[in-house]
Amino acid sequence: MSEPVVVETVEAMRAWSRMAMKAGRSVGFVPTMGALHAGHTSLMERARKENDAVVVSIYVNPTQFGIGEDFAKYPRSLDADRKLCGEAGVECIFAPKNLYETGACSFIEVGGLQEHLCGISRPGHFRGVATVVAKLFNIVEADRAYFGMKDAQQLVIIQTMVRDLNMSVTIVPCEIVREPDGLAMSSRNRYLSVTERKLALVVPRALDCFRAAIKNGERDAMKIVGEMANILAERDEVEIDYCAIVDAHTLEDVTKIKGDVLAAVAVKIGKTRLIDNARFEGL
Amino acid sequence: MSEPVVVETVEAMRAWSRMAMKAGRSVGFVPTMGALHAGHTSLMERARKENDAVVVSIYVNPTQFGIGEDFAKYPRSLDADRKLCGEAGVECIFAPKNLYETGACSFIEVGGLQEHLCGISRPGHFRGVATVVAKLFNIVEADRAYFGMKDAQQLVIIQTMVRDLNMSVTIVPCEIVREPDGLAMSSRNRYLSVTERKLALVVPRALDCFRAAIKNGERDAMKIVGEMANILAERDEVEIDYCAIVDAHTLEDVTKIKGDVLAAVAVKIGKTRLIDNARFEGL
Repeated sequence: MSEPVVVETVEAMRAWSRMAMKAGRSVGFVPTMGALHAGHTSLMERARKENDAVVVSIYVNPTQFGIGEDFAKYPRSLDADRKLCGEAGVECIFAPKNLYETGACSFIEVGGLQEHLCGISRPGHFRGVATVVAKLFNIVEADRAYFGMKDAQQLVIIQTMVRDLNMSVTIVPCEIVREPDGLAMSSRNRYLSVTERKLALVVPRALDCFRAAIKNGERDAMKIVGEMANILAERDEVEIDYCAIVDAHTLEDVTKIKGDVLAAVAVKIGKTRLIDNARFEGL
Repeated sequence: MSEPVVVETVEAMRAWSRMAMKAGRSVGFVPTMGALHAGHTSLMERARKENDAVVVSIYVNPTQFGIGEDFAKYPRSLDADRKLCGEAGVECIFAPKNLYETGACSFIEVGGLQEHLCGISRPGHFRGVATVVAKLFNIVEADRAYFGMKDAQQLVIIQTMVRDLNMSVTIVPCEIVREPDGLAMSSRNRYLSVTERKLALVVPRALDCFRAAIKNGERDAMKIVGEMANILAERDEVEIDYCAIVDAHTLEDVTKIKGDVLAAVAVKIGKTRLIDNARFEGL
């Protein structure tokens, strides 16, 4: 594999994309905040399969972090990221130093959907996500963009934004990639101590409980949520942010499980916030 | 001139634009709400000069009208509009029946700029404008878009949105077109009775007063605003919504006139709301 080219300015990225477009080459886009792991690799590999070229953006977006959140200490590892992109056949890395003009004041709000789950404990987060993703879409002008299903709420919000604002990119949701012991891949797993890493397994265990209950025919959401929460609460060191079963499209809590549903969990272990989810469709 | 093709769906418009793009033809775009007049024609003619093809959209956008505003009675005249577009060399008219999906909940906010001038008496108006213009830009994918300077606040908001969200379209501001007696062209002029039409001339007279004062070296904004307001207030039938001198970029009131400034006026005559402005740069 040849090394990917790294472009750092909006103008350079746009020039690259326009050349690809003129040459009739399809572009797959994987937006990331870097600190890449096997979850990201799976997105890149899928993008590689479905497009002539792959662009990965690496940008820790300040507007999606709240006050007191981990913006400053969010892991940055551009050299390792570049190597991983090269191995995955990525052709271009967009790594801007800054994406916001002085005085930038335009924001995209995806009403309703941002008021559930992570939106409650992270006010402004999804406004920042929607805005930066729209900016990246406008700069990269890709045919397809790849998002992991771990950030389930982010995915629904991006899909809704693309639909509502008639963006021409196609959103491709990709399965969650897990460690062998079941923990969902996340850049924030790097924060965990050895002890915390073990504690974190209550999250996939709670989701396993959800999957088993659904397969056993249980359709009472409150009952399953109670069982999931019991698992999460086994250890005092695990603080539950939320544990909910929601409609996969509206993200609203459900009582009777039916149609497309999502069991979504967020916990805090020490200073690290982890999210995960499991999905069933057509129930 | 041949008749412009009229397309009514997002998909058809996108197909047309993609074909133009593939053929390497530049596209100029004039977004309108129809009820076209000589102001619109001047935008189309400029677009014709600067691009290989011109697209005009005709869509009375419900989300930019407030409760009690004139959405339902806003003038609609597609046949006459089509003829006028044909004469101006427009190749394609995008006249969708509806641009919003059921459950659409994504909006673009251009903070700060929407809280001045018309934004005060028309809450939500510019949110609706920014959102529909972004949608139209994403559908038409033009190289350049043409906006009249009569809607000065709209123009600044669109320019800011395009900059902040890295949209690839170039915004081309175009001079205000006036009737021989000085009244700015507007689709809403059709609402005016003969008497009201005469009363409306206080607006260009107030702006003439601003221009004369600036040329005479007056730089005290409050003094000029006072003189302008005196002219507008000559007749009881004219209700002043605002009469202000603002920074042309931030839209904030100025006291000492300097740099790029805008004298902006909104009045209500009977049930009709009229806006107009005059601009000086580099003072």
